[in-house]
Amino acid sequence: MTKHNIDELCINTIRFLSADAVQKANSGHPGMPMGDADMAYVLWTRFMKHNPKNPKWHNRDRFVLSAGHGSMLLYSLLYLSGYDISLNDIKNFRQLGSKTPGHPEYCLENGIELSTGPLGLGFGVGVGMALAEKYLAELFNRPGFNIVDYNIYGIVSDGDIMEGISSEAASFAGHFKLGKIIYLYSDNKTTIDGSTDLTFSDDVGKKFEAHNWHVINVDGYDLEGIENAIKRAKQDKTRPSLIIARTHLGYGSPNKQDVPDIHGAPLGEEELKLTKENLGWPPQKKFYVPKEVLKHYRQALNNGKKEETSWNQMFKKYRDKHPDLAEMWDTFSNGELKKGWQEKLPRFRVESGNIATRSASGNVLNAIAEDLQQLIGGSADLAPSNLTGLKRYDRFGLPGGRNIHFGIREHAMGAILSGISLSRMLVPYGGTYLVFSEFMYPMVRMASLMKNRIIYILTHDSIGVGEDGPSHHPIAHLTVLRATPNLLVLRPADANETAVAWETALEYKDGPVALILTRQSVPIIDRNEYASERGLKKGAYIIADSKGEPDLIIIATGSEVHLSLKAHKTLTKKGHNVRVVNMPSVELFELQTDEYKKSILPPTVKRRLSIEAGSTLTWYKYVGLEGRAIGIDRFTESAPGKVLFEHYGFTEENVVKTAEELLKK
Amino acid sequence: MTKHNIDELCINTIRFLSADAVQKANSGHPGMPMGDADMAYVLWTRFMKHNPKNPKWHNRDRFVLSAGHGSMLLYSLLYLSGYDISLNDIKNFRQLGSKTPGHPEYCLENGIELSTGPLGLGFGVGVGMALAEKYLAELFNRPGFNIVDYNIYGIVSDGDIMEGISSEAASFAGHFKLGKIIYLYSDNKTTIDGSTDLTFSDDVGKKFEAHNWHVINVDGYDLEGIENAIKRAKQDKTRPSLIIARTHLGYGSPNKQDVPDIHGAPLGEEELKLTKENLGWPPQKKFYVPKEVLKHYRQALNNGKKEETSWNQMFKKYRDKHPDLAEMWDTFSNGELKKGWQEKLPRFRVESGNIATRSASGNVLNAIAEDLQQLIGGSADLAPSNLTGLKRYDRFGLPGGRNIHFGIREHAMGAILSGISLSRMLVPYGGTYLVFSEFMYPMVRMASLMKNRIIYILTHDSIGVGEDGPSHHPIAHLTVLRATPNLLVLRPADANETAVAWETALEYKDGPVALILTRQSVPIIDRNEYASERGLKKGAYIIADSKGEPDLIIIATGSEVHLSLKAHKTLTKKGHNVRVVNMPSVELFELQTDEYKKSILPPTVKRRLSIEAGSTLTWYKYVGLEGRAIGIDRFTESAPGKVLFEHYGFTEENVVKTAEELLKK
Repeated sequence: MTKHNIDELCINTIRFLSADAVQKANSGHPGMPMGDADMAYVLWTRFMKHNPKNPKWHNRDRFVLSAGHGSMLLYSLLYLSGYDISLNDIKNFRQLGSKTPGHPEYCLENGIELSTGPLGLGFGVGVGMALAEKYLAELFNRPGFNIVDYNIYGIVSDGDIMEGISSEAASFAGHFKLGKIIYLYSDNKTTIDGSTDLTFSDDVGKKFEAHNWHVINVDGYDLEGIENAIKRAKQDKTRPSLIIARTHLGYGSPNKQDVPDIHGAPLGEEELKLTKENLGWPPQKKFYVPKEVLKHYRQALNNGKKEETSWNQMFKKYRDKHPDLAEMWDTFSNGELKKGWQEKLPRFRVESGNIATRSASGNVLNAIAEDLQQLIGGSADLAPSNLTGLKRYDRFGLPGGRNIHFGIREHAMGAILSGISLSRMLVPYGGTYLVFSEFMYPMVRMASLMKNRIIYILTHDSIGVGEDGPSHHPIAHLTVLRATPNLLVLRPADANETAVAWETALEYKDGPVALILTRQSVPIIDRNEYASERGLKKGAYIIADSKGEPDLIIIATGSEVHLSLKAHKTLTKKGHNVRVVNMPSVELFELQTDEYKKSILPPTVKRRLSIEAGSTLTWYKYVGLEGRAIGIDRFTESAPGKVLFEHYGFTEENVVKTAEELLKK
Repeated sequence: MTKHNIDELCINTIRFLSADAVQKANSGHPGMPMGDADMAYVLWTRFMKHNPKNPKWHNRDRFVLSAGHGSMLLYSLLYLSGYDISLNDIKNFRQLGSKTPGHPEYCLENGIELSTGPLGLGFGVGVGMALAEKYLAELFNRPGFNIVDYNIYGIVSDGDIMEGISSEAASFAGHFKLGKIIYLYSDNKTTIDGSTDLTFSDDVGKKFEAHNWHVINVDGYDLEGIENAIKRAKQDKTRPSLIIARTHLGYGSPNKQDVPDIHGAPLGEEELKLTKENLGWPPQKKFYVPKEVLKHYRQALNNGKKEETSWNQMFKKYRDKHPDLAEMWDTFSNGELKKGWQEKLPRFRVESGNIATRSASGNVLNAIAEDLQQLIGGSADLAPSNLTGLKRYDRFGLPGGRNIHFGIREHAMGAILSGISLSRMLVPYGGTYLVFSEFMYPMVRMASLMKNRIIYILTHDSIGVGEDGPSHHPIAHLTVLRATPNLLVLRPADANETAVAWETALEYKDGPVALILTRQSVPIIDRNEYASERGLKKGAYIIADSKGEPDLIIIATGSEVHLSLKAHKTLTKKGHNVRVVNMPSVELFELQTDEYKKSILPPTVKRRLSIEAGSTLTWYKYVGLEGRAIGIDRFTESAPGKVLFEHYGFTEENVVKTAEELLKK
């Protein structure tokens, strides 16, 4: 068998595994795997450094299928290369509980590096992966020890390129010279609505050159051309590369090639048969994998084993020569934090006066940064406001730099944070105003889906922002974040709770964490008088109580806790039995035992009042039909923060009045 | 006084009105107005066609201050040109209830064309304004009658350019040859974090050329250069223009020019004085407007009057010659719909079988499109799925075309929809999957803030999407939309409710409307057996009731109403008194009288059960502490839709079981 024949067989195997799986599921996207099989084949058999038997080996190349609808391309490659995905799994495509869901879902154990589907996001996440590689390489590599040295390969589509996030991410990657990125752009000129000509006439190559990328054009079916392009891309160490490959959606289908329909629907039995005939494939066979094809792909097992063994040997020597670094490597890769790091957490004294929780957060971050070298992050051009800067470190891009200037690119920041987190070694953080979390929300949702370990630092968390006005005041935003599964939202009431919030966030491994912080100064709560800030860890705790059974419970978060405590004093003086529950995290509270929950919010107490300077929707779950919610369910105005708090009823007077109305019921 | 002197005086007046206002408010952004005053002056005094005494005159040029933080630039221009903004209003900058909020807030009466602040959005909205101009020109202009003929001018910043949405919108504008767009890019190379060099090294000109724009470079302080650039831009009728003007943040400040600090903080009294001295301005005077300056700017009054008068005369002749078109113009500009249009609304018969609400929506849209020529829209590359296509019309860009191919650019679509809506003549619609509404959410929020009349067609509204898996299943999304003020959310249960939803959406003028529609087929409810679909107009209505007082109320929306009706039958047979409330719109329900609300949800009935295939957060407001919510508060899996509905408990069996558990209480 000549080289040419095995190539063609291998490529057509991907095509028909994909088309057969979609046909069997009667659902899915055959067009992309059929069109992109050639370049995927070249990449996976001639370049990818990976060990299918250990998908977690750190120094593997990453593969980002940004065009996630082409999931069958990935599943085919994983099965053929010898990962823990079987032919049966492929036959079970898109079924409940299968290893082969409709779009790739992050599962490193099976070789799936990230979840993709919503277009543009994978493009951005790959940029974060490359940033992590660069940071880790700088931190760990030593002469003779290229411990960290891998590429980020990806396949991106017209849709990825049209989405704004890819422009943001490309601009970032070009600026920071993330040359390990090599994306193959499948330029098939076909989208769901029809030809890309309907709405798209960018000169993509020119655009990426303007973003400081290395751009190469190839024919998507010229194997040598693709191989040479990837080689050239690898040689360019400072510019990320975009290989623009002219491809055809549904390549090989006599009647449906380049027809939009083939993007997202099965070919149909008849057309599938015709396509097989057209490409010289046995038309009656389904899920057919010629023996020599499997053998050819499975060379990845041997190659991968060799690659990893060689790396392991190097790492052994590295451990001897650089024991401290090896130890740090172990800590990072186990997802652990340096022992005793909590001792560095600052303790804030009441006497030192009022302090915004964003400032407290900045203090905490700077206090722990030296111990926790896996913390890396920055802000989307709001570092002086989000207080995300590490004062003793330079900016990323300079030697030893850890402060990332994400630029005015929140969505790319979200993606990059996920990419860094997916290193499974680093814990990234990123800051913006709470209100602008909406710009990165699609990535916050995907990070939550992937359970990425990320800390979002969301400051300026209410009308406390003041004069900037309604476009800058978060109203729905806390509700949005709380409605997002797996995302832990923490809104501490004061500086000491902010320290506990950071501790909680860093220890949390089940998803990203959003720290919700004030712009304005708030008092430090005297914990001799009130309950300990460590109550935050349970999500909600009684911060001030009544002497007897409470007749009314006030539930508050963040800056509104102070208001509640004032009202509590007045109401108590007036002889009322009032409890104040501080609820910095609805999610943590919901994780507690029923017993604990009932001890905080006894079902018998129906007079309940929530106070939070945002949408009230979240709170009826706790105040019920008979309670009241003080909040803001409208767009606001521009005025100094204090004026706004008064204007919208966040005054001791109004809280006391509302509480007394409830008590009269 | 030479021409040169009056120019300089006029420009410095903007600079110091801005700096003084920020200083007095002790809050705001002086750097941009100080840096961009020159080009704003040239644009407003030598090009802008507008009538300050009638800001609503349709044929005016539009001015988009995408860099909304420079609001004082706009307020200065409005005051100086003679709009209804006084010097006192400027002294009241950023105070409660003032006409001069921190960022520009849409108020056409005062000459403020749109709300801006969150970066990138204004850039995109301007593209929609240009699309509206093009559509209206084609619809109304006749030989000798250029009724619609205006430019969209804008000032955009580094931040606008970095945001992904501007790439999407630029790509769209270039493709559709929206040559009336002329944006001045204030390239001051300074952002909050520092020099743009920290994170940005794009070749912006090259990038915009790749987007098919006309790019011109000028010195931001060379008045003749700016004038010539704008002239050249106007001459290019097919390409949108980007005039890249090198500017300096805080121009003229001896110690703070080009220093990031001056972006968002007052200069301080001392530096303000030094700056005035430096630019030859009386250092002690505040809010100083030389008489000759006011006179010079106020020529806009005379010019504007002339322009509008001349247009009015033309329109009078037009009315004589084209009475039908003039009548349509009146209808459009009064925000009215052609009389009797509702008669075209289809009525769906039970016998015709199950139909997805997205299909019903497509039928409705096609039935009314001919009567309602002000309806224009499309989809973000999901037209065959969202069913947004008007079958009897071509695509936008071709003569008579109304179907807009937004491309895979949801965020730009959101912005463009707002821009079209701001014409105050057209009613745009745009479709995507409900889950991808998150990509355009920042614009949905701003549209809600501006109360833009827009219809979002959000299909594939639940796990009914099926195999595409968790990245494509909306969980939080309905909650997100409902938590957004001014946004009307409608989730009809069947085809006939979909028609009423469209009717309601088109009649609604207080903000955008989101239609939430199924992918999967649902039965048509037999209205002989159940209450009329017109109940939708009240947000919630009793669709099926118990004979006596209800012991339990089931509240459901959309596709889950059918499930509730099934369960209602079974529970009734079992002898239970159960009411089913169909609540397609929480917002409309909240607008009803207390009496109506109590008649639907009597406070005495505490056994309540909500059913909606999404986040349950919204529902506790109606089911309270003692009720239950059947919903989905986790990420899901990939499987056929029917399998998923069963898997997550959306079965008659589970609803009956849950209801009976509640009834036992």
